[in-house]
Amino acid sequence: MLTLYHFWSSTCSRKVRLCLAEKGLEWTSHHVDIVNKRDNVQGWYVKLNPNGVVPTLDHDGYIVIESNIIIEYLDDVYPDVSLRPAAGHDRARMRLWMDKAETAVHKNINTISWNKRHMPRMSHLSDEQHRAVLEKFPNPEKRRTMLARLANGVSAEDEAYCEGQLSGFMDEMEETLGQAPWLAGETFSLADIAITPFIERFQANGLDGLVDFEKRSNVGDWWQRIQERPSYETAYSFQNPDA
Amino acid sequence: MLTLYHFWSSTCSRKVRLCLAEKGLEWTSHHVDIVNKRDNVQGWYVKLNPNGVVPTLDHDGYIVIESNIIIEYLDDVYPDVSLRPAAGHDRARMRLWMDKAETAVHKNINTISWNKRHMPRMSHLSDEQHRAVLEKFPNPEKRRTMLARLANGVSAEDEAYCEGQLSGFMDEMEETLGQAPWLAGETFSLADIAITPFIERFQANGLDGLVDFEKRSNVGDWWQRIQERPSYETAYSFQNPDA
Repeated sequence: MLTLYHFWSSTCSRKVRLCLAEKGLEWTSHHVDIVNKRDNVQGWYVKLNPNGVVPTLDHDGYIVIESNIIIEYLDDVYPDVSLRPAAGHDRARMRLWMDKAETAVHKNINTISWNKRHMPRMSHLSDEQHRAVLEKFPNPEKRRTMLARLANGVSAEDEAYCEGQLSGFMDEMEETLGQAPWLAGETFSLADIAITPFIERFQANGLDGLVDFEKRSNVGDWWQRIQERPSYETAYSFQNPDA
Repeated sequence: MLTLYHFWSSTCSRKVRLCLAEKGLEWTSHHVDIVNKRDNVQGWYVKLNPNGVVPTLDHDGYIVIESNIIIEYLDDVYPDVSLRPAAGHDRARMRLWMDKAETAVHKNINTISWNKRHMPRMSHLSDEQHRAVLEKFPNPEKRRTMLARLANGVSAEDEAYCEGQLSGFMDEMEETLGQAPWLAGETFSLADIAITPFIERFQANGLDGLVDFEKRSNVGDWWQRIQERPSYETAYSFQNPDA
């Protein structure tokens, strides 16, 4: 049995739900409220996922963490609908895009989200209460980053830097998608799945320059193809059961 | 033909040399002097590797970058000597350790190396000359990090934090290696290859608390087994041809 511990609107949870839908796998949902109840920092969850982040996959009692590792695991153990290209060099390209999803995209959009989404969500808390929430993050690196942001803020300069990095990333996508329909070449793959949730997140954050598809029409065409896949509707229709 | 662009003492270059040796593959060496000549920021190299870091693999004209991606590529295209466990869940464990090699280990040892190794190497340069060198890094993220270190230094507190993170990582290794001989279970894998160069780097940096194998005897036994493999001698015997 597959049980997914996930949060309805988290990018990395959506990544795994896209993969499950593409592979046509049945799974059981365990919703982890990371915003209001903060289930993710509770002892029972940290035992499953020491970093206290979503998602986590439980496959017959075997626990897998980290969204990129979860989706490649699913492709290893359920190979019938393959989401990895056959050729080794295309697999390497696929893994490079999956890596960029974390190192280039996730990190920068997370910084940008601080003022736009995180602070408004926390506006009902005093500074002290907010700090107490952040101090509960079990991952020391994440805790340190978040506490530094609370102490020093995220400056307009930091935001501009991150947006510039994301813009460079989108230029790379535009170039790659001018050569082949999908990020790793001729076949839809885990690379496309890993990037998809971030494009939607750019839109949700009002980063219009990044998602101006007149400017980057190859990405626009790809985005159209992505949204036409049934997996997109399935993964995105999951609504917050705790709302 | 396999051509490896690498630097003799870089951890990530050693990782790939270990993998090539384990698989018994012939390869051509293209040494990239990242310290004195700074070949890695020259235009010809940045065309191959846009981040300006080593290593880069050229396989019959197909270019692969990022050491973790290179070693998994080698295992995809040369499967005869397999360096990945057969079971999906062991492969997921393997990838989690490979990920930790970058996100937990590489990052922290790099910060610690600033005062211990980087600054002494640069001591013949004025501040201005040093800045000019760092400004040539093609990867904006790395450039920004290095310039911030030059401006603000790396504090004793930062170093202590990083060493604490590495100590936690070594505790995890100790626990894992108490359950099985190799990081991903019963078979030697890319996970062991990805971690090996960092253990040697802890020793080279005099981080004695991390490599006190009386305190962490499972890691000590593993380290002994690693060094007994012929690949270790092969990978480490490569000397600086530009010296």
